Amino acid sequence: MDDIKLKENGGVGMIAFISDWGYKSYYAGIAKSVIYSISPDSKVVDITHDIDAFDVEEASHFAERIFDYLPKGTVLLAVVDPGVGSPRKAAAVQIGERYCVVPDNGLLTRIIQKYEFKAYSIENEHYMYKIPPSRTFHGRDIFAPAAAYLDKGVKISEFGPELAKLITLEIPQPIVKNGRIEAHVAYIDSFGNVETIITQKDLANAQFPSNYILVNGQKSAIVNNYSENKNDIIIAHIDSSDYLELSSNGGRASEVLKVHKRDPIVIERF
Amino acid sequence: MDDIKLKENGGVGMIAFISDWGYKSYYAGIAKSVIYSISPDSKVVDITHDIDAFDVEEASHFAERIFDYLPKGTVLLAVVDPGVGSPRKAAAVQIGERYCVVPDNGLLTRIIQKYEFKAYSIENEHYMYKIPPSRTFHGRDIFAPAAAYLDKGVKISEFGPELAKLITLEIPQPIVKNGRIEAHVAYIDSFGNVETIITQKDLANAQFPSNYILVNGQKSAIVNNYSENKNDIIIAHIDSSDYLELSSNGGRASEVLKVHKRDPIVIERF
Amino acid sequence: MDDIKLKENGGVGMIAFISDWGYKSYYAGIAKSVIYSISPDSKVVDITHDIDAFDVEEASHFAERIFDYLPKGTVLLAVVDPGVGSPRKAAAVQIGERYCVVPDNGLLTRIIQKYEFKAYSIENEHYMYKIPPSRTFHGRDIFAPAAAYLDKGVKISEFGPELAKLITLEIPQPIVKNGRIEAHVAYIDSFGNVETIITQKDLANAQFPSNYILVNGQKSAIVNNYSENKNDIIIAHIDSSDYLELSSNGGRASEVLKVHKRDPIVIERF
Repeated sequence: MDDIKLKENGGVGMIAFISDWGYKSYYAGIAKSVIYSISPDSKVVDITHDIDAFDVEEASHFAERIFDYLPKGTVLLAVVDPGVGSPRKAAAVQIGERYCVVPDNGLLTRIIQKYEFKAYSIENEHYMYKIPPSRTFHGRDIFAPAAAYLDKGVKISEFGPELAKLITLEIPQPIVKNGRIEAHVAYIDSFGNVETIITQKDLANAQFPSNYILVNGQKSAIVNNYSENKNDIIIAHIDSSDYLELSSNGGRASEVLKVHKRDPIVIERF
Repeated sequence: MDDIKLKENGGVGMIAFISDWGYKSYYAGIAKSVIYSISPDSKVVDITHDIDAFDVEEASHFAERIFDYLPKGTVLLAVVDPGVGSPRKAAAVQIGERYCVVPDNGLLTRIIQKYEFKAYSIENEHYMYKIPPSRTFHGRDIFAPAAAYLDKGVKISEFGPELAKLITLEIPQPIVKNGRIEAHVAYIDSFGNVETIITQKDLANAQFPSNYILVNGQKSAIVNNYSENKNDIIIAHIDSSDYLELSSNGGRASEVLKVHKRDPIVIERF
Repeated sequence: MDDIKLKENGGVGMIAFISDWGYKSYYAGIAKSVIYSISPDSKVVDITHDIDAFDVEEASHFAERIFDYLPKGTVLLAVVDPGVGSPRKAAAVQIGERYCVVPDNGLLTRIIQKYEFKAYSIENEHYMYKIPPSRTFHGRDIFAPAAAYLDKGVKISEFGPELAKLITLEIPQPIVKNGRIEAHVAYIDSFGNVETIITQKDLANAQFPSNYILVNGQKSAIVNNYSENKNDIIIAHIDSSDYLELSSNGGRASEVLKVHKRDPIVIERF
């Protein structure tokens, strides 16, 4: 992968913004003000600011789920940063034709399990908002400005030395056997749908003999969409992100299955 | 109404976005990414993503309340879609000088009770994001791209065949008699104000003899604004959308009246 | 301060938007629609719409915390307006190289404690959205349009007569003695951090003899950042806005200290 400048004609684009700062907060407003001070023509798009406080793994899930849809040239600015003020690094990362600006704490784990990357440690004070940066709000002084300068066309290698690797979280991969998959709840969406990182290939490899499976002991129907089956309480389908999702007819699957984020999901033959 | 192209000089405008996906969700972020991939110069404006899950009637209320204020040429993208994956149609609709892109499930009921429309079934795969579209996320693959292409200037009749009618919800109209109005709670806002679809004309037709009325048995004063009357617990006034609203001095009217969304509201002579 | 026109070449900029209308509401959507109808090239940036209902002091805190970061030329549109419909004035205010559009109810108290201002009463109907304006939604008919016209380059003195002063709230300043500071909780952020308006100078003036202090009787360590001290339950530090903040290791400081917004904070020698 070449260290290319992705912006055509130096034009600015979209900055997709994820944080755990909450919507009742002035932190995201300050970060956006900093971005627009540096790069008035950028377009900041809030993905969410409601990541659970300090939950880097949840942010990693959101980042992976949205990544492939970001317009080419987009800068993904994701700040969930329990280690602010510690020696953890700040990273500017190029992945294909998109950029990420993140604390180096595993936030990109789910993305770099899939894609190659080139990462740089953000150390060049020329691209910081305040020198020295605040010890508690790198979102304002380091991450938001780096995203703005990247979007303005600053070469990613300008930010600092290359990082040979990025910190990754231990996110357990599904264990697939004949007739059995052991996995975890990756996320529960606003409708109570239970998201996993089980792929269609995992499902095929498990060779379940029928269209019914047991999910944590609960009979579940494998379907193509929410509307196809109105009889079974739990329906399992490959979701729009190409992972197995568990939904419920007329209710919240998470409540029927009594599961929370990160709980085990065991799928067996019916 | 002519099937005109509303955009001056093919210029893009505003896409007003309503959904029930929640602010802690990557779905709206993906839809916006799709829009900006197709039409980088569009301006997506979030109205709300906190419509109650699957509550098409609530979305219809929001759509009607905001519609007249949208800049001319705006595309209203409203996705509350319990029937995704079923045979329900996807509709691109022209209403006066604005467009709507919605599942054909009654979401525009309150608007088309007031205005004429011209509707098309979105079937042209050329304007979809993914072929075949996901069976569970038409927001991403059908609705967001249609809104983006409409905003870019694609002729609405390009999306598919004309629809003679749109599905409508059974939203009960106020029953007005002399000295009595029977209606329902349309919505309760963030301050606890109780919104109805009772018009000033309904109120005039009921010919209440004084400035006091009974609302579900509770003495209420008819006023012009929140500040005019500080004595009565419930005040009734014509709100900024020209419908009767019930408010409370120093509290939440919904709690004083003990009503929830869709509950009956009976107004009688005091 | 001259009554200058801040926009270079009449170009539009950013409108930073604060309200107590909630994210599940169509009010902010209507206000933004009005702005874009008047000034299609403006850029509205939501700071928050989750100010507690009618809490002008909380809005004042948010306004002050964000103000210095707003790009030059920004219009801060802040509408928390319990007195709508009463004789309270609507104000367009110039502060340095930025503007504010607010109800004259004390919302700018914290900002004008720090900065000089020039204020005008918004009375010119030419710049209102609807004549006469709604008696309950000045956000739509007066404040949003004033922000849009200011951003478009209308001279601030065009809006109406100058106001010699603005209403201010009685926000108690910290009382600093040797070895003791009496103050209040200004705000509790989404992580449970307790924000105050105690400055570094106040802290220096109190001349605490060690790096430990008592906060409401609770032993607390004065630190530079969240990561420096992992042993003490409460850590006190100068936050990114240069005020004293109380945080907790592995929890919510507000819960450890059992304090709510506006509660007293007494800091003493350990």
